[in-house]
Amino acid sequence: MSYRPPNSASIAPILDSVRFNSDGLIAAIAQSADDGAVLMLAWMNHAALAETIATGQACYFSRSRDTLWRKGETSGQRQKIVDIRLDCDSDAVLLIVDQTGVACHTGRRSCFYKSVGPDGLQDTEAPRIAPETLYAATGP
Amino acid sequence: MSYRPPNSASIAPILDSVRFNSDGLIAAIAQSADDGAVLMLAWMNHAALAETIATGQACYFSRSRDTLWRKGETSGQRQKIVDIRLDCDSDAVLLIVDQTGVACHTGRRSCFYKSVGPDGLQDTEAPRIAPETLYAATGP
Repeated sequence: MSYRPPNSASIAPILDSVRFNSDGLIAAIAQSADDGAVLMLAWMNHAALAETIATGQACYFSRSRDTLWRKGETSGQRQKIVDIRLDCDSDAVLLIVDQTGVACHTGRRSCFYKSVGPDGLQDTEAPRIAPETLYAATGP
Repeated sequence: MSYRPPNSASIAPILDSVRFNSDGLIAAIAQSADDGAVLMLAWMNHAALAETIATGQACYFSRSRDTLWRKGETSGQRQKIVDIRLDCDSDAVLLIVDQTGVACHTGRRSCFYKSVGPDGLQDTEAPRIAPETLYAATGP
């Protein structure tokens, strides 16, 4: 399966149907198309979602940097869109992606690596890439 | 794999590590343990997450009803916890669950059934259960 962006007439109605929160954001989950692993949760504003839908490359909104965050632009760890799904009340989006490398800024494949266990939190995976090699000067 | 709740001394440090947002909430993703399908995204406050961790049954916080939402209490569509994972910056939680029946109040298995396609949004699945049979008088 490969992603086909909507035709230009269909993009605006899709975006109009989305219920962004009071900060103008929608929660976005990224899931691996390979094996269904949930990779990360991030946020999108209108422009980030519009860009993701149009280009087929995941673009989020960085709340810490207050700017569009084209996933992998610095680190190379891009997310190619396979499918984009809105939920029943259109206030969350699920991206099914082909993940290049790792999703997490710690160098792990998934951000969800801290498991609640009998004795507290336990790491479920080690970094696959040293974080300091992921980013040159700009941070995640 | 079955979920084992933390011992009582370990629960408080786990909860203390969570970064709830300015509304006191954390985003919670539910994923099927069976096949990895992402079922829904909801929200938890401190009490909901504490209850989920302690009991092994998913409990959310309903923003519309401003109260704890014990998933399935009305509909019977419960979520038994298999694993609970926090993400790298501890502001999102992933629940891996055994879902009884369907997760979505529309009667579909997953809330993420509206796919962005070439001609706009397309439903990827039909309801498995008529919504009116899911709820008696109280709503989702």
